Amino acid sequence: MTPFIKSRPARPPFSKWIADSNNITQQFLALGGQPDFISMAGGLPAAEFYPTAAIAEAAQKAMVRWGSMALEYGPIEGFPALRQHIAERISREAGRTFTIENVLLTVGAMQGLDLLGKVLVDPGDRIVAQFPTYVGALDAWRPRLPVYDRLDWSVDQGTSAQTLRLAKFIYAVPNYSNPTGALVPTAARQALLEKVVETGTWLVEDDPYLPLQYDGPAGPSILSLHGRMEPNGVYDGPVIYLGTLSKSIVPGLRIGWTIAPKDMIQALVLAKQSSDLSSSMLTQAIALELLDGGCEETHVPSIVQHYRERRDALCEAADRELSEFFEWETPPGGMFVWMRKRHPAIDTDALYRFALDEKVAFVPGSVFDPAAELRSAMRVNFTRNAPAVLQEGVSRLAAATRRYLGSNS
Amino acid sequence: MTPFIKSRPARPPFSKWIADSNNITQQFLALGGQPDFISMAGGLPAAEFYPTAAIAEAAQKAMVRWGSMALEYGPIEGFPALRQHIAERISREAGRTFTIENVLLTVGAMQGLDLLGKVLVDPGDRIVAQFPTYVGALDAWRPRLPVYDRLDWSVDQGTSAQTLRLAKFIYAVPNYSNPTGALVPTAARQALLEKVVETGTWLVEDDPYLPLQYDGPAGPSILSLHGRMEPNGVYDGPVIYLGTLSKSIVPGLRIGWTIAPKDMIQALVLAKQSSDLSSSMLTQAIALELLDGGCEETHVPSIVQHYRERRDALCEAADRELSEFFEWETPPGGMFVWMRKRHPAIDTDALYRFALDEKVAFVPGSVFDPAAELRSAMRVNFTRNAPAVLQEGVSRLAAATRRYLGSNS
Repeated sequence: MTPFIKSRPARPPFSKWIADSNNITQQFLALGGQPDFISMAGGLPAAEFYPTAAIAEAAQKAMVRWGSMALEYGPIEGFPALRQHIAERISREAGRTFTIENVLLTVGAMQGLDLLGKVLVDPGDRIVAQFPTYVGALDAWRPRLPVYDRLDWSVDQGTSAQTLRLAKFIYAVPNYSNPTGALVPTAARQALLEKVVETGTWLVEDDPYLPLQYDGPAGPSILSLHGRMEPNGVYDGPVIYLGTLSKSIVPGLRIGWTIAPKDMIQALVLAKQSSDLSSSMLTQAIALELLDGGCEETHVPSIVQHYRERRDALCEAADRELSEFFEWETPPGGMFVWMRKRHPAIDTDALYRFALDEKVAFVPGSVFDPAAELRSAMRVNFTRNAPAVLQEGVSRLAAATRRYLGSNS
Repeated sequence: MTPFIKSRPARPPFSKWIADSNNITQQFLALGGQPDFISMAGGLPAAEFYPTAAIAEAAQKAMVRWGSMALEYGPIEGFPALRQHIAERISREAGRTFTIENVLLTVGAMQGLDLLGKVLVDPGDRIVAQFPTYVGALDAWRPRLPVYDRLDWSVDQGTSAQTLRLAKFIYAVPNYSNPTGALVPTAARQALLEKVVETGTWLVEDDPYLPLQYDGPAGPSILSLHGRMEPNGVYDGPVIYLGTLSKSIVPGLRIGWTIAPKDMIQALVLAKQSSDLSSSMLTQAIALELLDGGCEETHVPSIVQHYRERRDALCEAADRELSEFFEWETPPGGMFVWMRKRHPAIDTDALYRFALDEKVAFVPGSVFDPAAELRSAMRVNFTRNAPAVLQEGVSRLAAATRRYLGSNS
């Protein structure tokens, strides 16, 4: 006789978006911890170059300078002195005046994406997004149940004004986008901006990779192109610009910023109030010390040199071992090489499982597609691993591809 | 002749919830900065007692101990060593085993509320909430467009099983709730838990004020009452428990935690991934140093003594100057006195404007009501200001009330 076990009543169901979600970013973060595994999946900076001593020193300086003020609840908008610093920086970069009222400090640039979804998107609302699309942006907006249209950057045709007009916003990553690493030509940025101005919609310009330039300068930001059109007065333009210290210093301080007209900042502040009340004042005060001390000016050139070497090591190894199966352009910046299949039988979702068996990982294209149907390409990161490790990773990828294609025929 | 000004096309509308929102928390945070103004509005700890030196030291220790690891993207779930520490602490407090898989670290407890809304609530879903309701919880869930039912704590009748069954979750703050400061009797906690277990719904137990006990111990957490019912095995109970270091150490590290069954933690991790990718590892590593160093054990008794003095100073001054207009219970813990009108003509929304003229602020009851209709009570904070300032604040409140009632008649 088995004892009577009272079964537990079912819990209430999760929200609809959870069923369409995946924990792939979590998985990729976890893969990095396995021994003898080569992850070229994550979008991670190289930890061995982090300015650890400078950050420890900045932490001490921040505590001396700000004391208990650095340990308070924030102003929701962020630490005022850091907002002021960012306002001045953006004013220089974009060639027009932005004030502290145009600046919201966020948890990385990622929280800016989340907050934009919160303030603009109701279920069924449309977003026109660069395709393939940054997985973090898709993650951020999934709980708001949007519908996607693809952004067409081509100058001649491009996305129609009608499609832009129907959208709550356009999502663009013109500099070294994630996942493709592509740099959008200035003429295409200008053409998009003009159509956006005409239609009145918002244009979200996500620019995390700006510091990682390997072959000359990035293009002018769309925010700065708008600055040329309207150099004076209170900013009332359509561009919502996102920046971060995650690539130029370290991700672990979780410092990003959103630049926008004042009324949009106020709406985003409501959304941030409802998300986390405020960010850590301490990490914002530390970031200010680092920026005031010129950390980026010394640190960025050094990591750019290392990352360029790594990019070249990856591409040279891939030329030798993967060009039979894939094609790609050498990215002029950023963190990723976007490899598109040449061999017609390749399905990158299927290949991914063979890669795991060879103890190597990339990110399959499907995670950058709102419909999860893109299976002809993969994203390969080159910033996280040393050149020799990347070479070994490419050899494993080639072995996995051969084994996959063999099993397929 | 006026020059031709091209009017700008309208921007896309904000999401529906923005129109029903308010920036009252932002306003209250800002009020604190005005000279000669006495804000008894915010729910802020007293900054003069912050363990600033201990935190500066912990920051140095954390950087030495963890180095670049403290500067990485997180695991989304949080810094593993701190999760482990919290799992052990909750196991002690609740009398059953919780593992690291039951712990999600959040940006204060506030982010836990936001994430719960994200994973459970679709527009029109029902929440049974303690009334009056913490304004931060209402803020957190507003973007998900829920509908509210009131939680009735009474043992005899209480909220019906049918109402509980229809809800995505119950929201309860049994210890020194915000705004009322009330302590819910153990029998009422037990009765609610039993009904929740029977119906299968989730019970969110928000416990930020636990450390602030002025007149003897708080009640047993509902999580621990459930531990008595099911002391063994993997945790699969209905209680989702929220804690924080914001009251016991400082708010500015932004460290909170959510305790829940593993499947709920996994859903919340998806929501956190989509919100901010991960919290700062550095602040989590600093928090771990503080907890390992016994910061709470030395700090909490000291602030409890100060806050008890402040509570008593506020209540004594109010006895002298406000008892003609209001009635209240002396709260046995927490941060607030909840003053209900005795004078029938009082509308606390209207009184608020008179208070601002007298350079004093409280929080009117309406912000703790999902329908914004509660105008018979106000929340007065006693932790942020020294006793003499509280006495002056009460005098100003009395003057404002007299002037308001005079203008009214």
